[in-house]
Amino acid sequence: MVDFKYYTPTEVVFGKDSEGCLPDLVRKWGGTRVLIHYGGGSVVRSGLLAQVKSQLDAAGIAWVELGGVVPNPRLSLAYEGIELCRREGVDFLLAVGGGSVIDSAKVIGYGLQYDGDVWDIYDGKHKPVASTPLGVILTIPASGSEMSDSAVITKDDGLIKRGCNSDLCRPRFAIMNPERTYTLPPYQTAAGVTDIMMHTMERYFSHEDDMLLTDAMAEALMRTVKECGEKVLADPENYQLRAQIMWAGSLAHNNLTGCGTVSDFATHRIEHELSSTFGATHGAGLAAIWPHWAEYVLAENPTRFAQFAVNVAGVPNDFRSPERTARAGIAAMVDFYHRIGMPANLPELVGRPATEEEIAEMAWKATRGRTVRLGNLKKLDYDDVVAIYRMANKQ
Amino acid sequence: MVDFKYYTPTEVVFGKDSEGCLPDLVRKWGGTRVLIHYGGGSVVRSGLLAQVKSQLDAAGIAWVELGGVVPNPRLSLAYEGIELCRREGVDFLLAVGGGSVIDSAKVIGYGLQYDGDVWDIYDGKHKPVASTPLGVILTIPASGSEMSDSAVITKDDGLIKRGCNSDLCRPRFAIMNPERTYTLPPYQTAAGVTDIMMHTMERYFSHEDDMLLTDAMAEALMRTVKECGEKVLADPENYQLRAQIMWAGSLAHNNLTGCGTVSDFATHRIEHELSSTFGATHGAGLAAIWPHWAEYVLAENPTRFAQFAVNVAGVPNDFRSPERTARAGIAAMVDFYHRIGMPANLPELVGRPATEEEIAEMAWKATRGRTVRLGNLKKLDYDDVVAIYRMANKQ
Repeated sequence: MVDFKYYTPTEVVFGKDSEGCLPDLVRKWGGTRVLIHYGGGSVVRSGLLAQVKSQLDAAGIAWVELGGVVPNPRLSLAYEGIELCRREGVDFLLAVGGGSVIDSAKVIGYGLQYDGDVWDIYDGKHKPVASTPLGVILTIPASGSEMSDSAVITKDDGLIKRGCNSDLCRPRFAIMNPERTYTLPPYQTAAGVTDIMMHTMERYFSHEDDMLLTDAMAEALMRTVKECGEKVLADPENYQLRAQIMWAGSLAHNNLTGCGTVSDFATHRIEHELSSTFGATHGAGLAAIWPHWAEYVLAENPTRFAQFAVNVAGVPNDFRSPERTARAGIAAMVDFYHRIGMPANLPELVGRPATEEEIAEMAWKATRGRTVRLGNLKKLDYDDVVAIYRMANKQ
Repeated sequence: MVDFKYYTPTEVVFGKDSEGCLPDLVRKWGGTRVLIHYGGGSVVRSGLLAQVKSQLDAAGIAWVELGGVVPNPRLSLAYEGIELCRREGVDFLLAVGGGSVIDSAKVIGYGLQYDGDVWDIYDGKHKPVASTPLGVILTIPASGSEMSDSAVITKDDGLIKRGCNSDLCRPRFAIMNPERTYTLPPYQTAAGVTDIMMHTMERYFSHEDDMLLTDAMAEALMRTVKECGEKVLADPENYQLRAQIMWAGSLAHNNLTGCGTVSDFATHRIEHELSSTFGATHGAGLAAIWPHWAEYVLAENPTRFAQFAVNVAGVPNDFRSPERTARAGIAAMVDFYHRIGMPANLPELVGRPATEEEIAEMAWKATRGRTVRLGNLKKLDYDDVVAIYRMANKQ
């Protein structure tokens, strides 16, 4: 096991009555002029946005708003947010939505504390030293961004999707009401479940497999999400199922399940290019890549994949062959993805196979022009990434 | 499941090389004049205290020191600490040791931010509104105080042991090096393991048993600590075993394992009187009480005790009778306590049975003169507490 740091300062208020705390939390964390940042229809239709505004009004807290965040959020809107906040003297950001909204707000937060172009942070030209404080009202459990140090943004020009990790952007608070997720469409629910599991899988598949406590808790989390994820599609207004998934979404990515391991995150980075290139929903893209990544890297640590197969995917152990157990586990995950309506390869994700040109360009972008290798369990260069896209391209 | 808040802002630095961060962490969290607070021999003998002083010296951070904290720490020393810190203009507290030292420092922190007698907070006369920031170098995994909101202190006059819970006292940082725990004597190691498990057991035995994720993670934690706790006694310098126990100690009591449940903590409060009356080591006192508390309250939720029996204590499920499974689980825990050298009743703890007068006085103090009831799974009044002490009094 490796030495680790663990820092999760986000104040979580979870449950049916959690939203009432909003004005107190904004004040507690120093907000006097708030940007309400959101996406599109659902927070308007559900009445949540109106409720937030009237709560802030009643508490005498000034606000401005910026909607229009799209999935795989764009840098252009973050620029607009930075300008708006500067003009209006905003000192606190409130993201109302899911991971795209939260990440967009995080980018605005970085931008407000930096005189240059906020993309510099994503381009490796500037290391952030501060960020405007951020609170979250979460409506889509998936990204874990409500407690994480991660913020992913897509540059409009060239559709370059990049991430930045820093404790600076961890939200000050996160309000989570599972009832807000009842109306999530099945596809988004399933993509969220996939993303949540994957945040822990990315930490689990490691050569460092001797952190027993982290393993046991990670397996408990993944097993619970898998079970509840399948059940909730047939029972979308089941509070308990929604609650498990929502809380798991935060714990899966606040690094609790990565303490003592070495993260991989190659699947995430290989997926990011699918989101940019095909506009794929991130979670669906992960499901389309993971089984092929797993098969490609399995030989690096077959007993690890066998442990996952038995303890998470729920297949019986083949005591004579960890490899066979491992492969049965990957097959069980493919079945699971299909049962919850997720794709398990590129044609299922996109509606057609990717072309060789698309694969080459995605692999080029993912490896930043063959300059970086992805992952840790096996460090993947350009050719490896091409091979994985090709494996995923078969129906 | 119940709504919950979750707030664990402590910055954890964990591992073999964690101590090097000390000066940076003190500075980051605003310390310029530090009180080094500690107990007795071991931090001196191990060289840790000297290392801390030279690290602060090298970083140009001023410090004063106050040692002498005893197990079940005393209010009198906290008074001394408050006076010393006021005189010396201390703005940051550094606890070097285990739960007693951390709790003593927390009481000093409250006292420094309150003009009255800090005992007022423990006597219900004053609600704390601030606390001087605190960092921890942990050497004994047990109390979880390094991440918890809890601070327990014993008033010298009358040996009244009381606790206070508030987010204000959660440490700013906690440095944890499992190697520092290699030299812990077996009895203290076992008492720590018992305490760690109990912090999660106190949250687990609840009528609210539908938070599947919390359950699964809590069971994973308890199972891991139980397994590693037994192994480490035969292999005290095993880094991995020590690491699991140390990290579990923090997670068991930072409320991760209580999200969505209703805590009980009757066993803790019944035990506190054993510590005050007989000077018992807290963890050992918990082992002497828990089996009898469990038997006394089992009928409130037998399926819960059966689940614990199978998923944590490791007994086979008796499908025809949750009660029998539950009792087998309690018996397995008694065996476990004996295997790790812990007592499982009062005569084993104290060396003799408690007298009826002692039992009456402890029950009187635990229920604050028959004015409060303890616990939640079953709310225990004075007569219940007497009954449990009497059950625990049989060999």
